[in-house]
Amino acid sequence: MFIAMNRFKVVRGHEAEFERLWAERDTHLEAVPGFQEFRLLRGPEADDHTLYSSHTVWRDRDAFVAWTRSEAFRNAHAGAGSRQNLYLGHPQFEGFEVILSD
Amino acid sequence: MFIAMNRFKVVRGHEAEFERLWAERDTHLEAVPGFQEFRLLRGPEADDHTLYSSHTVWRDRDAFVAWTRSEAFRNAHAGAGSRQNLYLGHPQFEGFEVILSD
Repeated sequence: MFIAMNRFKVVRGHEAEFERLWAERDTHLEAVPGFQEFRLLRGPEADDHTLYSSHTVWRDRDAFVAWTRSEAFRNAHAGAGSRQNLYLGHPQFEGFEVILSD
Repeated sequence: MFIAMNRFKVVRGHEAEFERLWAERDTHLEAVPGFQEFRLLRGPEADDHTLYSSHTVWRDRDAFVAWTRSEAFRNAHAGAGSRQNLYLGHPQFEGFEVILSD
């Protein structure tokens, strides 16, 4: 199992707009081979931003990588470059292998 | 739903020892009210460390906070101060509220 997380620093005061963007998007992930689960997480607040992270569970890393090379991925990220004013810096990707599970 | 993650920077070369510590520990989490799931994640490698994160799913933040104030928590972390040589710096805690789920 593989967990793909993308961390976003959202400028304070723009949290509601950021959450609305995600609530309205349609990624068609459910049709992607190996996709298991999507969540959007709201994390700790700092003085100048609130940390958010997307959290996607995949059968394995290969399934995730195949998705990043697909047309479905390009379509899902078509508008990702806009609304830079919402963010401090670029999103930070982190991929995790699940090595223990209870 | 609430996800508690604790990030560990493990010095390169000590990954197997770190993973063995987690495999051998017994947290008794399954008996804690509101606990749903534990995972240990291995993330990206940097020049001087490999990022790991514990990943625990709870019914809600209150259930997690109650656990951190319990005797079970103190017992589970009784040896946490030892083996500092495995780590770069202290673990970094991040708690996340699940705000969207597919």
